[in-house]
Amino acid sequence: MTQPVIILARPQLGENIGKTARAMLNFGLTELRLVNPRDGWPNPAAGPAAAGADPVLAEAKVFDRLEDAIADCTRVYAATVRKRDMPKPVVTPERAAQEVHTALAQGACAAVLFGSERAGLDNEEVALADTILTVPVNPAFGSLNLAQAVIVFAYEWFKQATDTPAHQSYTDLPLASKEELQGLYEQVEAALDEKAYFRSIDRRATQVRALRSLWQNCGLSAQEVQTLRGMIKSLARPHRDD
Amino acid sequence: MTQPVIILARPQLGENIGKTARAMLNFGLTELRLVNPRDGWPNPAAGPAAAGADPVLAEAKVFDRLEDAIADCTRVYAATVRKRDMPKPVVTPERAAQEVHTALAQGACAAVLFGSERAGLDNEEVALADTILTVPVNPAFGSLNLAQAVIVFAYEWFKQATDTPAHQSYTDLPLASKEELQGLYEQVEAALDEKAYFRSIDRRATQVRALRSLWQNCGLSAQEVQTLRGMIKSLARPHRDD
Repeated sequence: MTQPVIILARPQLGENIGKTARAMLNFGLTELRLVNPRDGWPNPAAGPAAAGADPVLAEAKVFDRLEDAIADCTRVYAATVRKRDMPKPVVTPERAAQEVHTALAQGACAAVLFGSERAGLDNEEVALADTILTVPVNPAFGSLNLAQAVIVFAYEWFKQATDTPAHQSYTDLPLASKEELQGLYEQVEAALDEKAYFRSIDRRATQVRALRSLWQNCGLSAQEVQTLRGMIKSLARPHRDD
Repeated sequence: MTQPVIILARPQLGENIGKTARAMLNFGLTELRLVNPRDGWPNPAAGPAAAGADPVLAEAKVFDRLEDAIADCTRVYAATVRKRDMPKPVVTPERAAQEVHTALAQGACAAVLFGSERAGLDNEEVALADTILTVPVNPAFGSLNLAQAVIVFAYEWFKQATDTPAHQSYTDLPLASKEELQGLYEQVEAALDEKAYFRSIDRRATQVRALRSLWQNCGLSAQEVQTLRGMIKSLARPHRDD
């Protein structure tokens, strides 16, 4: 197994099964299991809601009992926001995703259970899980629907699976080298000297430092340095009638 | 400001505005701004989709121009998955949430822009933002809808705002003390000695260590230790007709 299984226990609307498939595939999850779907399976309302995630629906496996749906799993998480009087650990989606990655790396099969739209998982279903997964929500308004709860877990799983850089440049334009920046600094300062911008020798050093910081914080590309140098050159030019 | 503003540029369906409000309030966000909503505002389709997040809709502010909607903001993020040929940094939702927390701590106003359902933000709109926010999704199937993209950002923001413990015990049952565990260990081992479970003195030490590890890894509560001790006592009792 290279990914966790998503199990829907007693899902009601085909539309929500489709939305779950869409949520899953956005984050690279394709293993869907359905336990006792209320309106049978396949369900014609699922496809349109899947918005193209039809392969997930086509491969979905159906079970009569939750016990059978989790039989090959070694780690099972029950997604619920309600407090249960059960001595089970409760983890965040982030922590669950970390644990799932560990389990998968050991070759185990891990599953996350989601209950019916109306009332979530019942206590018998939660009891079959090792761990409770609770999405932290606004205590005054906890109203995540089925596909939204799936999205949050799947997002955390995919985030950890892919390790997208937190911060990156969108373009391939290389940053300016320090030499290019130095050329800009000197050109600007020479042009300002020419126009007597600096009031005194004493204050010049401080003002130059402030200007150089300003350019430095811009994160200029090599091309942007050229653009600025052209602009400065044009501004510094004498008027036609000077 | 204690929270970021969510701005929908040219949203089309009232239903999606309602779903956005619901997504926001789940994660404690209440400041919604709408720029040029296609079907005007208020929109009767928004309320039912908000599933109780009506106060967010009631307080939503409407603008004709995106420039006006962001006028009081110092940091603006544009949510988009499409590559833009713009020299702007691109960040993950996690990083954007971190930056927003920093901006809010400095008393600034931060906003996240989301485009229309059909085609997202246009280039003019993205150009007004400081930074591009891209949710990492399956490269073979990127199909997050508007409210789903809002959920991922809002979830990351709320996660950082609330600092929910990654792992916690669901019940208030205290864990067993080491003294209570020691009592269990000794009772079990005495009972096993009685039944000649250990084959030899040599192997007894190894077997005892394995059993004690087993109990230790169970993370037993004080009450569970009592339950086990009662069970062992009962099992160790001679048969009625012994």
